[in-house]
Amino acid sequence: MRMVDLIEKKKYGTPLTKAEWHFIIKGFVSGRIPAYQMSALMMAICFNDMDIEETSLLTLEMMHSGDVLDLSAIPGIKLDKHSTGGVGDKTSLVLVPLIAACGIPIAKMSGRGLGHTGGTLDKLESIPGFNVFLDSQAFIDQVNKIGLAICGQTANLVPADKKMYALRDVTATVQSIPLIASSVMSKKLAAGTDAVLLDVKFGDGAFMKTKEDAELLARTMIDIGTRLGRDTRAAISNMSQPLGKAVGNILEVKEAIATLHGHGPDDFTELCLHEAATMLMMAKVVQNVDEGLALAKEKIDDGTAFEKFVAMVKAQGGDVQYVLNPSLFDTAQEVITIEAEESGYIADIKAMTIGLTVMKLGGGRIARHDTIDFTVGIILNKKVGDYVEKGEPLLYVHTNCGLSDELRDDIMAGYQFSSQPVSIPQLIGNIIK
Amino acid sequence: MRMVDLIEKKKYGTPLTKAEWHFIIKGFVSGRIPAYQMSALMMAICFNDMDIEETSLLTLEMMHSGDVLDLSAIPGIKLDKHSTGGVGDKTSLVLVPLIAACGIPIAKMSGRGLGHTGGTLDKLESIPGFNVFLDSQAFIDQVNKIGLAICGQTANLVPADKKMYALRDVTATVQSIPLIASSVMSKKLAAGTDAVLLDVKFGDGAFMKTKEDAELLARTMIDIGTRLGRDTRAAISNMSQPLGKAVGNILEVKEAIATLHGHGPDDFTELCLHEAATMLMMAKVVQNVDEGLALAKEKIDDGTAFEKFVAMVKAQGGDVQYVLNPSLFDTAQEVITIEAEESGYIADIKAMTIGLTVMKLGGGRIARHDTIDFTVGIILNKKVGDYVEKGEPLLYVHTNCGLSDELRDDIMAGYQFSSQPVSIPQLIGNIIK
Repeated sequence: MRMVDLIEKKKYGTPLTKAEWHFIIKGFVSGRIPAYQMSALMMAICFNDMDIEETSLLTLEMMHSGDVLDLSAIPGIKLDKHSTGGVGDKTSLVLVPLIAACGIPIAKMSGRGLGHTGGTLDKLESIPGFNVFLDSQAFIDQVNKIGLAICGQTANLVPADKKMYALRDVTATVQSIPLIASSVMSKKLAAGTDAVLLDVKFGDGAFMKTKEDAELLARTMIDIGTRLGRDTRAAISNMSQPLGKAVGNILEVKEAIATLHGHGPDDFTELCLHEAATMLMMAKVVQNVDEGLALAKEKIDDGTAFEKFVAMVKAQGGDVQYVLNPSLFDTAQEVITIEAEESGYIADIKAMTIGLTVMKLGGGRIARHDTIDFTVGIILNKKVGDYVEKGEPLLYVHTNCGLSDELRDDIMAGYQFSSQPVSIPQLIGNIIK
Repeated sequence: MRMVDLIEKKKYGTPLTKAEWHFIIKGFVSGRIPAYQMSALMMAICFNDMDIEETSLLTLEMMHSGDVLDLSAIPGIKLDKHSTGGVGDKTSLVLVPLIAACGIPIAKMSGRGLGHTGGTLDKLESIPGFNVFLDSQAFIDQVNKIGLAICGQTANLVPADKKMYALRDVTATVQSIPLIASSVMSKKLAAGTDAVLLDVKFGDGAFMKTKEDAELLARTMIDIGTRLGRDTRAAISNMSQPLGKAVGNILEVKEAIATLHGHGPDDFTELCLHEAATMLMMAKVVQNVDEGLALAKEKIDDGTAFEKFVAMVKAQGGDVQYVLNPSLFDTAQEVITIEAEESGYIADIKAMTIGLTVMKLGGGRIARHDTIDFTVGIILNKKVGDYVEKGEPLLYVHTNCGLSDELRDDIMAGYQFSSQPVSIPQLIGNIIK
């Protein structure tokens, strides 16, 4: 078998067989197949889609390229959730303790932010002392002891994805539904999950720009999961404006804590409760959404969700004083208020612009090894649909390097106003399964 | 400027600017841009074509990636010809001395064979002692002294093409009209030519399978040449069956010698005379095709074309005894006759099959550094349109390793017979300019 012939096949849109994908993934991970052949193959995939059967074959080969976690030591259905990433998406910080509070053990592996999207691990690391590096045994032990854990991928989980993603990132081959789907699903499967809820986002701040593409990606991942025997469902959610009001690591942790206390922003709270309800159904703890919503709400109101969060922070070495008293967190040197230049209803706040601005302030990574300034970020005072008077604060910029006219102009270019009332965009569509 | 952004642009079909192509070619040749980014870019080009303007920009950047030969020390219009490659294509061996015999100095750089296609340099090297490695000065001096030279590319001519071609060869990105056109034309331009005749082949044994693709490739190369101020014309010629009767290095040299003596195969002789006539018009030595054909024919009939060939062989260190007496050439151990299994008119002889068979017999390269067995090859006894009786010889296989049933079956699978007379396919179309 020659890699060049397999690239040629893919170039002409012919599906590759299981044996061929095995050859490719094994060869690429071992270094026998050079990056320049892999990048050509992946570019061909960007142009010639792959069907579900082939994408499933690829996913399986990727999954088995390294260790596969055995979570059988944790009793019951092992749930996982995955968000395709967005701006202000701190959902895992609320959802994981909320599910654990409902008595479902949850062992979640998360990623870091790149580009305009934040990452759960970076947010957790903004809590002083929080350790995201757990080995498999410590990870399982913690879940068995306190019911939840969030950590980074162990070193040898899906090495194929690590290598492929690093290459896709520099060869403009990130944007491909079969490649995104196999990347996500191979990691979820290798992480030992029985059931996974996918939060597939669409809109300006998401990788999928349209709802149709998000549904296609969701459908692809569900089909892969189902073929491989996992209960896989997806929520399609809107990421045209940022989720919640806070964007930036410490600011988002504070918003997550507020949400666990029952006073988070409406949209973010709604998303957390709905995803929790779906996961509770998947865990067979409740029969329907309403029961799920009620149970989740109860666990916030009675404080047990927050208690689980505190327990996780403590178990993973974080200083719980910060969580109990968020005013202890470091703050940026300066908070610059941007006021509305006109009165009207807010018709749009481009999530991408807000995400990129926070990245440029130092709150995100441009390159993989950049360090992050946890204190900077943006707090939105108004969201889409809100009425704002001229001169009223639109948003607050938390910065350690001032705010250039260019960045201010960028932010404002992301806003649209309307003299007529604007309906609030629907945040979550139907759950697909 | 970041390479990943340029790949992304190309992925979405946006033309790149001169500055962007400069950045890419310079970066790739210097090693600053890694092969995995270049291969992703080239795959994107395979899917999203480039227009003439952009292809010309790429060609110019490639041309200037290394030395540009200055042929001004040779008086008059510097002519060149280039064939896109085929099976049994020994045209340069006849055309170069024929043009020189007409008083036009000709300095030709040639390439080696790869895959099913033969290369002029390999054929010349089958003449004992023949040296294809001339430096620029020796090359020019020889042309000024005896009127002709054929050599390989000097080391630093179009390094971008060498590196790009090597990468395309292993990443299934050879097949792309803008990449083929820029590869050919950058070399022709860097070789200091004023005018170039392109022989663009189509059919089974050519890189372009259809006449339409060949015309598109020809048109692209002509447009590039014209934009850059060179008289560029193209002959579209049929490569569905092998050219002439001989395929294999020594066998083709012998056929070229016979053709220079005026008794070569009809189709090959016709192609040589027509291409010579066009080049004589480009050199402004004759006014029209008929004058050109007459002059070329005269130079074969009076022996001066052959004399030029002998002079070139002598000047480049080859043993002229072999050329004067071709029976001195080494021969293969065995000549196996394949007879017709049925009577009828030959309707097709797949050039690719014949080319691949000769390669497998050792007469061509599978990988770039393979050595070649000059003695092996195939002589066709009959060509398309000929009538053959059952039991009559169809072809002769010159081999040093017998002939496996598999190879024999392959060869026969390339033949088609008809009970009805078959018209001989037109070899050369109109000259495009």
